[in-house]
Amino acid sequence: MKRGFGSDNHAGTHPQILAALQAANVEHAPAYGTDEWTEKANQEFRAQFGSEAQVFFVFNGTAANVTALRALAKPHQSVFCSDVSHINVDECGAPEYMAGCKLIALPSVNGKLTVEELEKAFIRRGDQHYSQTQVLSLTQPTELGTTYSMEELKTLITWAKDRKLYVHVDGARLANAAIHLKKSFKEFTTELGVDAVSFGGTKNGLMMGEAVVFLNKSLSLDFKYIRKQCAQLPSKTRFIAAQFEAYFKQDLWQKIANHSYEMAHYLYNAVKDIPGVEIREVPQSNAVFAKVPSAWVKTLREHYFFYVWDENTFECRWMTSWDTQKEDIDGFAKILKELAR
Amino acid sequence: MKRGFGSDNHAGTHPQILAALQAANVEHAPAYGTDEWTEKANQEFRAQFGSEAQVFFVFNGTAANVTALRALAKPHQSVFCSDVSHINVDECGAPEYMAGCKLIALPSVNGKLTVEELEKAFIRRGDQHYSQTQVLSLTQPTELGTTYSMEELKTLITWAKDRKLYVHVDGARLANAAIHLKKSFKEFTTELGVDAVSFGGTKNGLMMGEAVVFLNKSLSLDFKYIRKQCAQLPSKTRFIAAQFEAYFKQDLWQKIANHSYEMAHYLYNAVKDIPGVEIREVPQSNAVFAKVPSAWVKTLREHYFFYVWDENTFECRWMTSWDTQKEDIDGFAKILKELAR
Amino acid sequence: MKRGFGSDNHAGTHPQILAALQAANVEHAPAYGTDEWTEKANQEFRAQFGSEAQVFFVFNGTAANVTALRALAKPHQSVFCSDVSHINVDECGAPEYMAGCKLIALPSVNGKLTVEELEKAFIRRGDQHYSQTQVLSLTQPTELGTTYSMEELKTLITWAKDRKLYVHVDGARLANAAIHLKKSFKEFTTELGVDAVSFGGTKNGLMMGEAVVFLNKSLSLDFKYIRKQCAQLPSKTRFIAAQFEAYFKQDLWQKIANHSYEMAHYLYNAVKDIPGVEIREVPQSNAVFAKVPSAWVKTLREHYFFYVWDENTFECRWMTSWDTQKEDIDGFAKILKELAR
Amino acid sequence: MKRGFGSDNHAGTHPQILAALQAANVEHAPAYGTDEWTEKANQEFRAQFGSEAQVFFVFNGTAANVTALRALAKPHQSVFCSDVSHINVDECGAPEYMAGCKLIALPSVNGKLTVEELEKAFIRRGDQHYSQTQVLSLTQPTELGTTYSMEELKTLITWAKDRKLYVHVDGARLANAAIHLKKSFKEFTTELGVDAVSFGGTKNGLMMGEAVVFLNKSLSLDFKYIRKQCAQLPSKTRFIAAQFEAYFKQDLWQKIANHSYEMAHYLYNAVKDIPGVEIREVPQSNAVFAKVPSAWVKTLREHYFFYVWDENTFECRWMTSWDTQKEDIDGFAKILKELAR
Repeated sequence: MKRGFGSDNHAGTHPQILAALQAANVEHAPAYGTDEWTEKANQEFRAQFGSEAQVFFVFNGTAANVTALRALAKPHQSVFCSDVSHINVDECGAPEYMAGCKLIALPSVNGKLTVEELEKAFIRRGDQHYSQTQVLSLTQPTELGTTYSMEELKTLITWAKDRKLYVHVDGARLANAAIHLKKSFKEFTTELGVDAVSFGGTKNGLMMGEAVVFLNKSLSLDFKYIRKQCAQLPSKTRFIAAQFEAYFKQDLWQKIANHSYEMAHYLYNAVKDIPGVEIREVPQSNAVFAKVPSAWVKTLREHYFFYVWDENTFECRWMTSWDTQKEDIDGFAKILKELAR
Repeated sequence: MKRGFGSDNHAGTHPQILAALQAANVEHAPAYGTDEWTEKANQEFRAQFGSEAQVFFVFNGTAANVTALRALAKPHQSVFCSDVSHINVDECGAPEYMAGCKLIALPSVNGKLTVEELEKAFIRRGDQHYSQTQVLSLTQPTELGTTYSMEELKTLITWAKDRKLYVHVDGARLANAAIHLKKSFKEFTTELGVDAVSFGGTKNGLMMGEAVVFLNKSLSLDFKYIRKQCAQLPSKTRFIAAQFEAYFKQDLWQKIANHSYEMAHYLYNAVKDIPGVEIREVPQSNAVFAKVPSAWVKTLREHYFFYVWDENTFECRWMTSWDTQKEDIDGFAKILKELAR
Repeated sequence: MKRGFGSDNHAGTHPQILAALQAANVEHAPAYGTDEWTEKANQEFRAQFGSEAQVFFVFNGTAANVTALRALAKPHQSVFCSDVSHINVDECGAPEYMAGCKLIALPSVNGKLTVEELEKAFIRRGDQHYSQTQVLSLTQPTELGTTYSMEELKTLITWAKDRKLYVHVDGARLANAAIHLKKSFKEFTTELGVDAVSFGGTKNGLMMGEAVVFLNKSLSLDFKYIRKQCAQLPSKTRFIAAQFEAYFKQDLWQKIANHSYEMAHYLYNAVKDIPGVEIREVPQSNAVFAKVPSAWVKTLREHYFFYVWDENTFECRWMTSWDTQKEDIDGFAKILKELAR
Repeated sequence: MKRGFGSDNHAGTHPQILAALQAANVEHAPAYGTDEWTEKANQEFRAQFGSEAQVFFVFNGTAANVTALRALAKPHQSVFCSDVSHINVDECGAPEYMAGCKLIALPSVNGKLTVEELEKAFIRRGDQHYSQTQVLSLTQPTELGTTYSMEELKTLITWAKDRKLYVHVDGARLANAAIHLKKSFKEFTTELGVDAVSFGGTKNGLMMGEAVVFLNKSLSLDFKYIRKQCAQLPSKTRFIAAQFEAYFKQDLWQKIANHSYEMAHYLYNAVKDIPGVEIREVPQSNAVFAKVPSAWVKTLREHYFFYVWDENTFECRWMTSWDTQKEDIDGFAKILKELAR
């Protein structure tokens, strides 16, 4: 496949992660999470999220979300999420099927939920006919590449906590949010009252692997059974744990997230002034969302793959990743300029 | 961790599999199964199971089983399985939760189902009060290390087909059955009328990865959605596919299965005559089930880890794997002999 | 409780229905639907909906909806419904929980779905990440008291059929739609291509009881099991069947629906010109939706109970039923006029 | 249909229950359980089960069982029940589907569970691979017409409580157990530590209606939502409540249960000495289980309907009900005697 800007999961495994997998491939290790790599990876997570954090590895992002939601909401309860959230439009109904609960998808602005919409939707408390909202699920950064500011997070989480709701963060690319916010993970999750995080690995250089991180310890008590019953207990767990250990060690996570973040800005700067290119926002993570004339798409995709995000408006998503090179972007910008002539 | 006979998932990744992962770590590949490694691995599977085989990668064995069962049985239908089957006692209720259907666990002999018990349980057809059995699930080799013979398979599968039941095979260690039976995969699955196989990778030298293989193509039509909704669609699929491609290429699967099978026999021969050791059967796969005096267990496990299979009878399970060495077995036998003095 | 306009399920059982229950209370009858009353009621339904109609009694309206949806949609599929539909906002997440599928709630106009919104939402066919829409669910009459016209029904159902979607009608008050449309049940359901109807009894004078009526016979094949597994198989079925038999015999259904429909118009005419009363629409079923000054609500409800439908706009719902009397309405209008002075 | 001994749900509605339904058919009543009949019925239940009892009406017995189990067990937990229990063999997989949990069916003696079997099955606590048992479900009287004695109940419930399990009683015919035990409901449920009861109405003279009675109040907190989400919230609740109110008033329940109990003994005495008739036990509720020569069944059923309970042994179930008459039994015994000649 050509290189391109299709998704951060089109990139392969970061060499340091691969090296960690090789290093972990020694002798026997107990299965199902009692190995030493899991213990070390847990420690790394606690260093990032606080000493109370409870960490459970799962296989992919959908799994992290649905198992977390199952832990946070009973089936007669509902989850507020944005209309463009991954749980609402990209998981084939997995949250409803596997957690049993109802999603209430709310209108969003640039991918972000607002208190105004939450307030309107927070109705019929105690009414047995109405699924009772129990969770606010935020995606950080959002599916549209924006990142909730510290102020926005505080406002939304306070709103939720005042109503005794749990807060879940879908953090498939949480590391990019950390870079944008210039904050530690702990500062914009644990310390603000987030209860559980779906922490992404796969889109950030891992071969595969995500983590459900409970910041509210009491919610994790049954989780080992929930994970197993959802078919998400890895057998040779060390091979997910070793990746995360390497990811956090020597701040590899930061290097990776920083790189893809800077590449997004490099791309933004390279194309923003090209006539015909209309960019949604200055990048707040590792994505650039832009509209281009529909006639350009075919030519562009012949050279660099990417997705048309909205089939109606022809808004495109250009994602950068740990392996994006300036040459990729220069080449892409060159074609855009030719098309713009 | 010490080496031992705990499980074939305590072993690491076979070097050739790891090499394949490295080799696959180039450039970009589309996610979610449209990459070239997936295509090649599919071809390998078709070479083994027949040209109609439909292959879907999932993350672990429980996932392979529950997604396959969801494809084969509607929630108001039930599944016949053995009382010691993995789906019945080792998946924390995942089949019931994720497929919605009922398991009817039948008494087994050495891990094997019998027509006599099936016949007794096949009742109340068309009775709306009774969950209608739709699937016969066989584990091959069984959880007790035995392998259904060709004759037994024919008898059971014919019984099922005569009653219009689907046949599922839990083949977490199917390669070992192939070695024992001296048959190709196709001969003892496809050609006998098996509808779907949970094909194991993790316990046979892969880092992680299993496959649901539909031999009855019509049952696979919706499966891509089922897999996704069960949170089992791998993102960077190439890293599971590449493992399976390597596993089948140059008959690596055969080398691995043959090795662990021979090691089980080496172990059997090394311990069978030690007084106090009571062996269930001549190995039919990569496991030896044996009773030893309960007082021995602690000492034995200090040197070589293994599981006590039955807490009441002190029957133990000693599993061999791709990396079991004769020295491991010699050392283990030596301790047993010392204890037997 | 005072009389009022709270709901058509605040009224009791129509005397002729009660008489039928008494008449059915003789000797023994087989349970679970093999009794003679069930057979007779089925014949009545076939007379109304066509000879192919397959009828299954269940206990309440939520049950009719969720079991019907379970028969029409697989869990990885979704259902288009209006944002104000009963299945979306009044069933505590039962459709998601019991049918497993996803609801996609679309903006409605006066309770009605439009092709424009359906068209916008009908996306990502064949995309494994996206729950595939399989059912269009219409409420007839709608939750806002409006009734889809024949033309509207044809347009919507044609749209659905062209896309191979099934059509479900939530007809808790279907009889009122028949009165408004001046059409037989068959003409505005079966003949237009509707696949399944939740046919209401409780709100139309029955003591309790609803029916799932399959007009597309092939969808009903497994339904006896689905009903049982959803805990909706009535034991002494004759006592639901006998009510429906009486309901259809000698056109009692028509008398009841006609009465409540006319009472709604009587109410509409009695209050429409009172200053401060703002009515949504000329009644198209047995409901009047009207806004009144919020200060009036308390006084009004002290005399005649009703629900404030929208807590923000103070739109109220005034429902009439088989037992609504002109005196009730005259009394209510009198208080309104006093308040309006 | 001829009269017979088919089931206590083949009988109609007791005249006093029907009269109560007529009496409740006045004016308007709020729906969904806030009516005065519900309040009165609740008081009657509290008089029987203790002042802490929380009562929720549902439509049928399967519903009572599955909603109660959903309240008592999380999906990753399991329920011990007898192999012949209604939840295991007569609910088409509803408990697994609607509560999500696993049933572990244990061998029973005359329909009764034993501590020996429970003890053997109570394994692998804390093991994430194994569904964790949380509930002991007892049927009282059992499906084979036997009744657990006070001593047996104490032993079993103590066993469960010592292991922190909840105790559920499927009491579709609980009134008959009260008669046999000569105890109040409270004495053999609440006072022994039972947590929740499925209390039967339909088989005891009601037209339809069952109750979930929580004796452990803390388990009922979410139940109104669970009931609604399981489609079991009755709309015109007064018509179930009024039946239960009448059932308890002036000890009608006792008259009904006593009558059917005595009729079972009358039947037992009438047939026990007929050659060829082999009776399982002296009746402990309103059923006689007996084997007769298979050749007799056809003739017998031509006159008096009943079920062959076990297709292999030709054991038959002869049930008495509130309307069984001595003439029915005399006539039945006469035919048996003729056949026995």
